[in-house]
Amino acid sequence: MTGRAKDKDTDTKEIREYHASSVGLFFTVDSVLYRKQSSYQKIEVFVNESFGKVLLLDGLIQTTEKDEFFYHEMLVHPACTTHSSPQNILVIGGGDGGALKEILRYPVESVCHVEIDAQVIEVGKEYFPWLSPCLKDKRVDLVIADGLEFLREIERTFDIIFVDSSEPIGPSVALHRRDFYETAKKRLNEEAVVVAQIGSPLYHLEFIRECSATFKEIFKTVRFYVGPAPSYPGGSWCYAFLSDNVDPLVLQRDPPPGLKCYNRDIHQAAFALPPFMKDTI
Amino acid sequence: MTGRAKDKDTDTKEIREYHASSVGLFFTVDSVLYRKQSSYQKIEVFVNESFGKVLLLDGLIQTTEKDEFFYHEMLVHPACTTHSSPQNILVIGGGDGGALKEILRYPVESVCHVEIDAQVIEVGKEYFPWLSPCLKDKRVDLVIADGLEFLREIERTFDIIFVDSSEPIGPSVALHRRDFYETAKKRLNEEAVVVAQIGSPLYHLEFIRECSATFKEIFKTVRFYVGPAPSYPGGSWCYAFLSDNVDPLVLQRDPPPGLKCYNRDIHQAAFALPPFMKDTI
Repeated sequence: MTGRAKDKDTDTKEIREYHASSVGLFFTVDSVLYRKQSSYQKIEVFVNESFGKVLLLDGLIQTTEKDEFFYHEMLVHPACTTHSSPQNILVIGGGDGGALKEILRYPVESVCHVEIDAQVIEVGKEYFPWLSPCLKDKRVDLVIADGLEFLREIERTFDIIFVDSSEPIGPSVALHRRDFYETAKKRLNEEAVVVAQIGSPLYHLEFIRECSATFKEIFKTVRFYVGPAPSYPGGSWCYAFLSDNVDPLVLQRDPPPGLKCYNRDIHQAAFALPPFMKDTI
Repeated sequence: MTGRAKDKDTDTKEIREYHASSVGLFFTVDSVLYRKQSSYQKIEVFVNESFGKVLLLDGLIQTTEKDEFFYHEMLVHPACTTHSSPQNILVIGGGDGGALKEILRYPVESVCHVEIDAQVIEVGKEYFPWLSPCLKDKRVDLVIADGLEFLREIERTFDIIFVDSSEPIGPSVALHRRDFYETAKKRLNEEAVVVAQIGSPLYHLEFIRECSATFKEIFKTVRFYVGPAPSYPGGSWCYAFLSDNVDPLVLQRDPPPGLKCYNRDIHQAAFALPPFMKDTI
């Protein structure tokens, strides 16, 4: 994914994320809570007056306390409301636990959470209040592993797989490769959905186009949808809904109560794409 | 409208716009094309590698060449596709001409364009290529005047009034007052719509709530809609659709060809509001 350049200097009182070479977001740093290099990536947590605690991986904003609900609700709920009986769920990535939190709002049987970097989990448990309760939930099985290796080795299958990867630099690169989705497809139940975060419609349109071409070779239904993501580049984020037999536009149930971004109307709205995206994809 | 603080230093090689006290967008400045104080506000035009020419008024981004289409298409087309016969249009503000450009895609009889600051028009003609052709269009009547004073004094009426104001600091403050909308209503034809840009759902929700209360005292139909606006705070922007007799969800015609952001699906999608907005408004 182009354009989301690494932060160049996080030792100041300000964090900046470049969305392209000449534009980006800046955040004033009230305090740095955590800053260490793990075996995989640089992990940072800082406090910002507007967004609360902010998690960065390799200088890219992953999660903020204030606006995480936009991204995580839009990642999780469209698949969970359209699958006729989502029971066994796999999340790859998303070590901060935001996706897990949304999935556990449903009466699912199991959630397998595969995160490559144990240190991200430890940081999440320390600084993001929703993660520890999720990991204590009996339905949750945390696996520290590479997502693609996990998919290759496991024999069980899932109703929904969420690909909550970080950007395709560093440890997430493999997740964006064709073999990842081909392998994921082998781990799906008869009725199943894969949802993946794909990038910014403004900054990563060519990457979205490439993904679209790959996905269409693997899945019968390839639909992209878009939701707000204020702290991500361009303020909107694109997701892929991939299935052979689940209609993304037919809701099987109401969303759970207490959501802030997602409802039935927003579900339908998210799948409406502007001409500049339709013409490209 | 809170949170859109003025730029503190535009003499550097970077322009930054604070969206709240601790967060905002930064833009690298390739070159400054214009920087002068008019009778009303500080007007700046600079060139950014990603967004092209960028217009600032009092340090706030109004228009960029690359992403203006999001804001201007979403401001103009919902009203123009739902009014049964939009013929006589009024635009208040919007001196950069982006709204005018979108309106002139329709076979309207007349567009009255009221801008308070003649210097903004001159800057627009010089630096934004779409403005001069619009102003040469025989259907367009440019009036340099205060919007509220204009509405009080004129006797003719309109099918659609677009309130394309800058932020409610400086010369636009009056446009956001109750008497502005009460006066505007007196200048409407029997079937008519007023559309106003209202702010960021993330940063200006309380302002949107206040506007909603005021609008509901004046208009039978008060609907808010949201569209992407990458260079504005939070990346999404909210608009108010105000009418006594036009249904915002019933399209009377296809949108004109050549649009990049707006189509029939996006129209319906834009009126879907997330729970956090519905609960507030």
